[in-house]
Amino acid sequence: MESQNKVSNSFDGTTGTDSKQVVGMPRTLSNCDLILRVVALLLTVTSAIVLGVDKQTKIVPIQIVPTLPAVNVAAQAKWHYLSAFVYSMVANIIASSYAAISTLMVLGSRNGKARLGLAQIIAVLDILMVGILFSANGAALAIGLMGYNGNSHVRWNKVCNVFDKFCDQAAVSIVLSLLASLAFTALILLTLLTFHKRFAR
Amino acid sequence: MESQNKVSNSFDGTTGTDSKQVVGMPRTLSNCDLILRVVALLLTVTSAIVLGVDKQTKIVPIQIVPTLPAVNVAAQAKWHYLSAFVYSMVANIIASSYAAISTLMVLGSRNGKARLGLAQIIAVLDILMVGILFSANGAALAIGLMGYNGNSHVRWNKVCNVFDKFCDQAAVSIVLSLLASLAFTALILLTLLTFHKRFAR
Repeated sequence: MESQNKVSNSFDGTTGTDSKQVVGMPRTLSNCDLILRVVALLLTVTSAIVLGVDKQTKIVPIQIVPTLPAVNVAAQAKWHYLSAFVYSMVANIIASSYAAISTLMVLGSRNGKARLGLAQIIAVLDILMVGILFSANGAALAIGLMGYNGNSHVRWNKVCNVFDKFCDQAAVSIVLSLLASLAFTALILLTLLTFHKRFAR
Repeated sequence: MESQNKVSNSFDGTTGTDSKQVVGMPRTLSNCDLILRVVALLLTVTSAIVLGVDKQTKIVPIQIVPTLPAVNVAAQAKWHYLSAFVYSMVANIIASSYAAISTLMVLGSRNGKARLGLAQIIAVLDILMVGILFSANGAALAIGLMGYNGNSHVRWNKVCNVFDKFCDQAAVSIVLSLLASLAFTALILLTLLTFHKRFAR
């Protein structure tokens, strides 16, 4: 029991704290949490917008009959032509919606009750967002790189030499989404750090 | 102070626990943690092996000159021809190595000291594994689906109608890797649950 009391007494060094403060985050970490959520919101929204407006039309010469000269055809590249980009868009919309809702929830619960239950739900959903965003980024990056380099083994030609603007804009969207997934990762680390800080005292 | 004491007194209901037990996991959750690490290890190792031995040779008719009949050529599909599969392989090797090391660390620290510092490092690395594995799965899945379906917009033909065995084996590897990433996600949830259980009492 002695060691228990030792831990118990050093459980929270701040004076005048109530039970809500004990189960919640210290003010500094709580502010970091809020900032990270807003950053994640901005990054996912911007990533979705950059990808959503991404399209490019190019005049491409196509050889229909080998003996006749090539015919110029207007070819268009749109984000929803590739399922990996569709997944990236859906993932960013889900993540931005969640970032907005969780920001409001964290703000609203700052002086409210039932912080532990809320913290549990938010922590689980943060992890879910990391999984969704990282898999979406991996998918979009794999297809993006294939577009830039192509692959001779499967005879998939690169398309970014033609649709350069489209590829660059998709790359920007992927980088923004990648930063957002790192922000959500930092949020989980922050939650773990909060609990560890409590125990370490 | 009253509420602090309330939390402090109800901090750990078990009798005869020492300070190491207080900062560590309860026995049941600790066993779950260990089982999940072994499961993650088996899944990542199997996924890497299934992908590593994945190759298929097929005789494909290729038209070299339009006026002459097609020439039969032996075409080979190997996992390292596609960078997404290489990334998946590297991710699974890293994750399996980490799963093995962390299993030993958790086993070794069960009756040892400095559990909090170790728990911090392991929790951070668990999150890192989730990020690496989910992005690798997303990448491999995007390329795999492209192989199954192709895409008429970018003129990438499907290849899984020819290399059926290769694609099926890659799909098995991706599913195993996906299950491993879920095991690592469960490990983070378990860490959070451990801390939440402590606070909720």
